[in-house]
Amino acid sequence: MTKTYVHGVGMTKFGTHADRTLKNLLLDASRQALEDAGRPKVDAVFVGNFLAGSMSNQEILGAIVANDLGLGYIPTAKVEGACASGGIALRQGILGIMSGEYDTVLVAGVEKMKHARTPDVTQAINAAMDTDSNEKHAGLTFPGFFGVLAHRYFHETGATKEHLAMVALKNRENALQNPLAQFQKPTTLEEIIGARLITEPLGLFDCSPMTDGAAAIVLSRKPSPIHVRSSALVSGPTQMQDALDLLSIPAIGESGRKAYEKAGVGPEDIDVIEIHDCFSMTEIIAIEELGFFPKGEGFKAIEEGHTKASGKKPVNTSGGLLSRGHPIGATGLSQIYQLVHQLKGTAANQVNGARMALAQNLGGTGSYSAVHILERV
Amino acid sequence: MTKTYVHGVGMTKFGTHADRTLKNLLLDASRQALEDAGRPKVDAVFVGNFLAGSMSNQEILGAIVANDLGLGYIPTAKVEGACASGGIALRQGILGIMSGEYDTVLVAGVEKMKHARTPDVTQAINAAMDTDSNEKHAGLTFPGFFGVLAHRYFHETGATKEHLAMVALKNRENALQNPLAQFQKPTTLEEIIGARLITEPLGLFDCSPMTDGAAAIVLSRKPSPIHVRSSALVSGPTQMQDALDLLSIPAIGESGRKAYEKAGVGPEDIDVIEIHDCFSMTEIIAIEELGFFPKGEGFKAIEEGHTKASGKKPVNTSGGLLSRGHPIGATGLSQIYQLVHQLKGTAANQVNGARMALAQNLGGTGSYSAVHILERV
Repeated sequence: MTKTYVHGVGMTKFGTHADRTLKNLLLDASRQALEDAGRPKVDAVFVGNFLAGSMSNQEILGAIVANDLGLGYIPTAKVEGACASGGIALRQGILGIMSGEYDTVLVAGVEKMKHARTPDVTQAINAAMDTDSNEKHAGLTFPGFFGVLAHRYFHETGATKEHLAMVALKNRENALQNPLAQFQKPTTLEEIIGARLITEPLGLFDCSPMTDGAAAIVLSRKPSPIHVRSSALVSGPTQMQDALDLLSIPAIGESGRKAYEKAGVGPEDIDVIEIHDCFSMTEIIAIEELGFFPKGEGFKAIEEGHTKASGKKPVNTSGGLLSRGHPIGATGLSQIYQLVHQLKGTAANQVNGARMALAQNLGGTGSYSAVHILERV
Repeated sequence: MTKTYVHGVGMTKFGTHADRTLKNLLLDASRQALEDAGRPKVDAVFVGNFLAGSMSNQEILGAIVANDLGLGYIPTAKVEGACASGGIALRQGILGIMSGEYDTVLVAGVEKMKHARTPDVTQAINAAMDTDSNEKHAGLTFPGFFGVLAHRYFHETGATKEHLAMVALKNRENALQNPLAQFQKPTTLEEIIGARLITEPLGLFDCSPMTDGAAAIVLSRKPSPIHVRSSALVSGPTQMQDALDLLSIPAIGESGRKAYEKAGVGPEDIDVIEIHDCFSMTEIIAIEELGFFPKGEGFKAIEEGHTKASGKKPVNTSGGLLSRGHPIGATGLSQIYQLVHQLKGTAANQVNGARMALAQNLGGTGSYSAVHILERV
């Protein structure tokens, strides 16, 4: 089987870019990744993006990258899978190399959200629910969904709002070390717990923000020190009412099992982890689904500090979606950006000797989950 | 190299579906294709779509297909490349099989446009231009762009509005035989030439319509009588001001050359053709770019009847975008639907003994062109 390697990574600062366009951010991250890879000949481009059509009247992002970077008449496409768009674009790049059609692929992700009013963004994001379902029209939102999961988790396990706050605090503390992260202001457990409520029981710090930003990766079949050991993507239930168990997001578990199986490794082999913490609750569920901690006990691992950068299973050393920020289409690739730096020994919050890394990127209420395992070779 | 075959096709009636949702159309075509393929186990889904996010607040189409058709926890994604979204989705399906990751893939395309006001659709479609360019803000639209090409073509070649009308009339006459086509009312050259102007020199019949509809294809590595002989995709200039020659849409020519080279065939080997006639002018340019007729002489081939279903190079026997209709994300796959029926001998406007077929799907002002060559084996 053809192997795939990472040759370069690029990322803009995440945050508010009022004076820059979507295209400007996308090209910036892409140029950085190409520069980092030594300006290779690029055979194809995949762009991960969710909202540019509805919020910026801008599609054809694949063609724009090829055209504006002078890459020639090459195949390009945009790939969408809600908040997993970046991870899915990465997978299409890997499949393109495995197919034998491409030697080197640029994968970029971008989102611009901060120019719009919050209700308009919320409405646009609801495109990640099934419009034909009654729950969307009944008023369900993504904070609402993850709030329900938190309530259920508290009820079943004895966890509390304080455990959610510990996730948010950890990720904020990680972000303080990451110059590209959106939030760089220190905070406290008290401030997090006392922050205004978004949806019971999730407060402001439990919810990922609106963010402008872009990230990009150059992949090649040519060996490099960073090997993509496995790629897995699954789709899961698209409606909350299809959930058999509110303590589980089955797509995460399925994508993890497939990724481990293909890689021939298990959770015990992973040194550093980026997880899709769209809400603090999601991080707790994901570390359980991915087998890092037993079901119903993720909150204890948080409490015991195991997921800190200095812990035995460092999670979201970048600051995660909660504090690095969540420019939707870029998120999955910003996870890879962080992990590649971890494996090269050049990361914010460097984990000493990190050799194998896992990224998990979620879409919708579990409609998509992509897992990629990288290793230093 | 792994070969890819078509195992099933499905398509809804194209037209106005006021009483059906986007999802309903998408699942209908998908079910038909799966039924036609003998209900195989599906390993992945790719959906081609352009406007569902902005016009129907509906993304996650890949996950919706997998979930609602009970396909299990499989990889899915939506793929976008403006009006070439369907052709690009098809290519991702082929790459997925070539990669060794998937044995059987469902590729579906859908669009729903008729529920919206024309100015809103025009605005949404303009997402296929570069929002950072001055020409978009100066008021350029797609009819405007192709109108300029027609003016220039008339000036350089001596062609007239009557030649455009001949394209529109041929495609309407073909559509009369196709029960799934949007327009089934006979017309005349006089009516077409006398119709209200959309943008000088393009009249109503020279422009593809707004359409609701869906189409789907099942691909597999397992042999079938319909072999995908080659797949080519290129990106080209994203702005009109980048055009070096207004008689050319270079992405079409480049995609054609790549497809012929990979297939080891030339235009002389192709028996039946579906081309992206978003405007009547586009069909004339495309038959030249793809080498079926010399540059600047496509209009003569039209005049001489060579592109009729009974001619030596039958083009758009389905009715084309102009009369079959143009539900954007579905268009590239509806071309394949028609060509597969041609190769099986079961098409509307059957071309006797058709053995090799070519589909060309365009995005934007030439930002994307996908070409697929199919053969009966």
